[in-house]
Amino acid sequence: MTTFQRKRVVIVGAGFGGLSAAIALSRSPVEVLLLDRNNYHTFSPLLHQVATAELEPELIAYPIRKVLRKYPHVQFATAGVKRIDVASKFVETSNSLITYDYLILACGSSSHFCGVPGAIEYSYPLKTLKEAVTLRNHILRCLEQATEEADPSRKRQLLTFTIVGGGATGVEFAGSLAELIFDSLVKDYPGLDLNQARVILFQSGDTLLPEMPKHLSIYAQKQLERKGVEVILQTRVSQVTSDAVYLENQRLIRTSTVVWTAGVRGNYLAEGWGLPTSKNGQVEVLPTLQLSDYPQVYVVGDLASVQQDGQKLLMLAQVAMQQGKTAANNITRHIKGRTALQLRYRHSGTLAIIGRNAAVGDLGKLTMTGFLAWILWLYIHVVNLVGVRNRLIVIINWLYSYFFQKRVVGLIFPREETSPFYRGRLTSEFYRREEGETWKN
Amino acid sequence: MTTFQRKRVVIVGAGFGGLSAAIALSRSPVEVLLLDRNNYHTFSPLLHQVATAELEPELIAYPIRKVLRKYPHVQFATAGVKRIDVASKFVETSNSLITYDYLILACGSSSHFCGVPGAIEYSYPLKTLKEAVTLRNHILRCLEQATEEADPSRKRQLLTFTIVGGGATGVEFAGSLAELIFDSLVKDYPGLDLNQARVILFQSGDTLLPEMPKHLSIYAQKQLERKGVEVILQTRVSQVTSDAVYLENQRLIRTSTVVWTAGVRGNYLAEGWGLPTSKNGQVEVLPTLQLSDYPQVYVVGDLASVQQDGQKLLMLAQVAMQQGKTAANNITRHIKGRTALQLRYRHSGTLAIIGRNAAVGDLGKLTMTGFLAWILWLYIHVVNLVGVRNRLIVIINWLYSYFFQKRVVGLIFPREETSPFYRGRLTSEFYRREEGETWKN
Repeated sequence: MTTFQRKRVVIVGAGFGGLSAAIALSRSPVEVLLLDRNNYHTFSPLLHQVATAELEPELIAYPIRKVLRKYPHVQFATAGVKRIDVASKFVETSNSLITYDYLILACGSSSHFCGVPGAIEYSYPLKTLKEAVTLRNHILRCLEQATEEADPSRKRQLLTFTIVGGGATGVEFAGSLAELIFDSLVKDYPGLDLNQARVILFQSGDTLLPEMPKHLSIYAQKQLERKGVEVILQTRVSQVTSDAVYLENQRLIRTSTVVWTAGVRGNYLAEGWGLPTSKNGQVEVLPTLQLSDYPQVYVVGDLASVQQDGQKLLMLAQVAMQQGKTAANNITRHIKGRTALQLRYRHSGTLAIIGRNAAVGDLGKLTMTGFLAWILWLYIHVVNLVGVRNRLIVIINWLYSYFFQKRVVGLIFPREETSPFYRGRLTSEFYRREEGETWKN
Repeated sequence: MTTFQRKRVVIVGAGFGGLSAAIALSRSPVEVLLLDRNNYHTFSPLLHQVATAELEPELIAYPIRKVLRKYPHVQFATAGVKRIDVASKFVETSNSLITYDYLILACGSSSHFCGVPGAIEYSYPLKTLKEAVTLRNHILRCLEQATEEADPSRKRQLLTFTIVGGGATGVEFAGSLAELIFDSLVKDYPGLDLNQARVILFQSGDTLLPEMPKHLSIYAQKQLERKGVEVILQTRVSQVTSDAVYLENQRLIRTSTVVWTAGVRGNYLAEGWGLPTSKNGQVEVLPTLQLSDYPQVYVVGDLASVQQDGQKLLMLAQVAMQQGKTAANNITRHIKGRTALQLRYRHSGTLAIIGRNAAVGDLGKLTMTGFLAWILWLYIHVVNLVGVRNRLIVIINWLYSYFFQKRVVGLIFPREETSPFYRGRLTSEFYRREEGETWKN
């Protein structure tokens, strides 16, 4: 029975930041315990493709235990964290209290509804796998119901899809949704005139993709419009209801689908933990990623508010990954009696896909649009996906979608037993025939 | 405006029977309306592989509209049928009344709980895609909870998995589950002694696979036992609770998982429709598959009780498919003024998989066991799957599983927000450390 005690590092959250930290720490003389509410890691850059029936959810969700097979010194537990006590150095989950020597908070971000009435209740966010599947089911259900809808204005409402927020997520989703409806599903609903469907993207500022150079934003807008998306700039949403979206200029658009990609903030769970947070819920940390008052506590990823060269780092996967490694390295240094290093984040570039053959890339000195940017986007996302099998199947799905315009994941699954959405409408003529009535189709 | 009226055929249910009938009727001068509660067709022979994390649910669920792209004269609507009125010739769904000239009922079967107390509330059936995913999530959750469980007897309960019913479904699931736990997951849970896990298969009769020749049943039992399954014959279950299964001989086994594969009956929904049903809920039809009192109404698939050569046909996919075609053909004949033909079912054979390299096949004159039967089973199931892409990915998954013993679909998804299952247990030593306590792992 040895009395040697290794230091214990607890990492909360197995997203890009948490998982990178755990893997980096696997080579250090520490015990690592990684916690996440789910037993899988989500590759969130491809969430919009799950929501538009292009990819199965399982392809972008990798069981964490399988990732950790190679790292036997990293333990994992499926647990939701309720509370952190930085003074007493423990983490409270739903069924345990876990003490730590070092803590890395990597809880990520939540959707930010900007105080818009009705947004929480009626809009569809796109931050988690479950939200992506819920949105996909909803879109398909709208189309199914539209086939049976007799009232033309209600039918138009079901076929109107709105997206609030023209950043990368909103742009990528809008492009993919337009391709789903106008290119792919048009073959599955021969009785439905999908030309009357609308995909509308609202942006509060005066360009899409505000973090990108202006010419890329303009290109993205043109490409979206070519694919059938209506882009409405300089417009804020003032209210969301179950069947309309209200704009600040008093206009309203009747729609059954409002997708919320308008903002992110630090994970709201962190609010009650007594940590120094900024206005958007991110936790403020030193350039070494430590809390200034509790140097054993590190924060990485979307949850962390870090400055570099006078600017706050963006909420990106690559930022989270580099921060995870830096935090891990700093913990290792501290154990060896050295001082912590500041994060030196190196930005490779940003890519955003609009749709088939169309993407934009800002690589610093170089910008790209069109086919080459699109290939680069596909490549980057495939190689960063976890698991050879998942990569292979994502490529197969993309080939299928590209050549056959088939979205093979067009399932409404799981089906909700009672859909609160659509009740008791009279059906179209197709279903009711009286004696001698002529046949119209 | 033409006044020509084609006859309308309404088909309820898009399983093997309904879909075969719809496709056969696509060449006939009728209008076809196919209804199903879900917008996808489920390839049920592979459900057990979804439940044991070997296949994604989407691989065995194919959107019906995509199947019907090639058949523009077959309409589809997602609708749950509440009532059939054979006298007035209409079908009532949740939001419409649909009149018909001919009706094909293909609603399939439901799990039969045999009046066992607690079976409905606490057991896990395996008839639908949702049930398969629910079961998979539950199995993985049991393992996650077992890693944190301090009480040894509760831990053993979480690691005990029981299956009630030793027909093909029970045998196939038991074999796959044993491989999941003893071969695959053992690498994901290094802290958990999975040798204490148990997979127990109960059969009321004296052999497994009672419809197969005796030597195949014995082979199947031996193979299951080699894989670690405990086979308990001549034992009936008398009660199921949330943490145990009670046997008729007064024994009880503590378990958190009771999988119910003990019986099927005609879809219980059909009970209230005033049709002539047998004791197990199947609808009795003539050899032409028509109701004797209402010749425009046909019943096919698991819901139909049909005699051939003095024996009732079994509930098999191949039976349903041939019946679907026969019903379709008979409707076409009737429109052309001819008489209906009796079903002439031709049985190709039955295969059941036990696990890697092990299956049994009863092909009439010839029986097979072992590797060849296994390859044949794989082949038959892959070619009958809908969709080239799905077939390709199923093959990839099987290769992965075979060579790497990785079940890549090990996700607990969707996660239930509140798990009623496991609350507030004290955790193991790992999480709690006091000053000077030695490190045990």
